[in-house]
Amino acid sequence: MPKTIDHEEKKRQIAEAAWRVMLQQGLEGATVRNISKEAEISLGALRYYFPTQMDLLEYAYSSLQEKITEAVSGIFQLEMSPKEKILKVLFFLLPDDEGIRPEIEVSLIFKNHPEFRNKNFKRKEEGVYTAVKNVVSNLMLLNLLRRDVDSAIETDRLYALMDGLAMNARVQNDKWDIEQLRKLVLVHLDSICHEKFSETDI
Amino acid sequence: MPKTIDHEEKKRQIAEAAWRVMLQQGLEGATVRNISKEAEISLGALRYYFPTQMDLLEYAYSSLQEKITEAVSGIFQLEMSPKEKILKVLFFLLPDDEGIRPEIEVSLIFKNHPEFRNKNFKRKEEGVYTAVKNVVSNLMLLNLLRRDVDSAIETDRLYALMDGLAMNARVQNDKWDIEQLRKLVLVHLDSICHEKFSETDI
Repeated sequence: MPKTIDHEEKKRQIAEAAWRVMLQQGLEGATVRNISKEAEISLGALRYYFPTQMDLLEYAYSSLQEKITEAVSGIFQLEMSPKEKILKVLFFLLPDDEGIRPEIEVSLIFKNHPEFRNKNFKRKEEGVYTAVKNVVSNLMLLNLLRRDVDSAIETDRLYALMDGLAMNARVQNDKWDIEQLRKLVLVHLDSICHEKFSETDI
Repeated sequence: MPKTIDHEEKKRQIAEAAWRVMLQQGLEGATVRNISKEAEISLGALRYYFPTQMDLLEYAYSSLQEKITEAVSGIFQLEMSPKEKILKVLFFLLPDDEGIRPEIEVSLIFKNHPEFRNKNFKRKEEGVYTAVKNVVSNLMLLNLLRRDVDSAIETDRLYALMDGLAMNARVQNDKWDIEQLRKLVLVHLDSICHEKFSETDI
C-alpha cells in the first residue's frame, strides 16, 4: 500500500513545517496558513490531512514526542558502556555548542503555551519525561542508584532539573557554559548514585 | 512631594494591570490597549507614563522581580528558625493549594517569551534566582552546606530545579501533589547539607 505510506510521509512533512514555524514565531504563529506556506502545500491539501488547526498541532506535538523518544532509544542502542549512554541521553536534553536542540525547544514552546498544555499535555507521553524515567530505571537496573533514595522522587527531581536547565539555557543573553551544565548533571548523578559518574570518559 | 508618590503609585497600578492581563492572555495579549482597559485609565494617560509598549513591559518585568525579591526578604525577616525560613522561601516558589503563585506564573511567562527574554532577561535581576542565591548563601553562613559541594554549581542546580518544578506544576491536567513537591525539595536540601532538613517542623 504505497499510498498510505505517502500519506504518513506527507503528514510528517507538515508536522516538521509546524515545528519550524514554531521555532520562528512561537505557537501563536503556528496558523494553518503559515504552516501550509512553510510546508509548500496548498491550504486545501493541508486541510485534507488536518481538518482543524488543533488536529494539526496535536499531531505535531505527539510526533515531536515520538521523535525525542526515538532519539533517546537510539542512544541506548549505541555501542558504549551503560554509564556513557546514560550521560549521552541526559546531555542530549541540554544545549550543546549549537545551542538548545530544536526538538527540545519546540517541546518547551508547547509546554509553556497555556491553552495547548492544559488540553493536550500528558507527562507520560512527553519525550523528556520518558527519557528521564528510563535513565532512573537504568540506574536501578545497573545497581547504581543509591538504596536510600526514592526512585519516584528522583525521577521527578531529575525531570524538573533537566527541564529547568533547558529553559534557563534558552535565554540567549544569559550565557550558560556547556561544560558547566554537564558538570552540574554529573554532580547530580553522583549525588544519587553510589558510584562516581564524574570519572567516566564522556 | 506628594505628586511624585502619586505617579509611582499610578505606574505600579498599570504594572499590576499588565500582570493580570498576562495571566489571562499571555504576553501576546499584553497590548497597550488591553492594559489601559484593565487598569481603567485612558490610553493617553497610559502613554504619559509609558511612551511605548516595551517601556511598559520592561517596567512590569522589573517591578515584578522586585516584588518577588521583597516577598522573599519579608520571609527572611520573620520570627522563626533560619532553617524554617529557608524552607518557607523555597516553598514560596512552588505552587500551594491555590496553585502556582501569580508572581511566579507571570515571571515564567516573561521568561518563556522569546523576544522579551532575549532582550530583557538578566539572571541576576530575577527574583527566583535572587531567592535561590540567598538560600545557598544562608546555608553556607549557617554552616549547613556540605563542605564537599561547590556553592556555584549548587546555586545553578537549585535554580534549575525550582524553575523546572514551577514550570511542570503549571500544567493543570498533570496534578502535582503539593506534599510530594515539598518532600522533593527537602530531599534536595538533605543531599547538599550535612544536617537533615526533613526533620524540621514546617
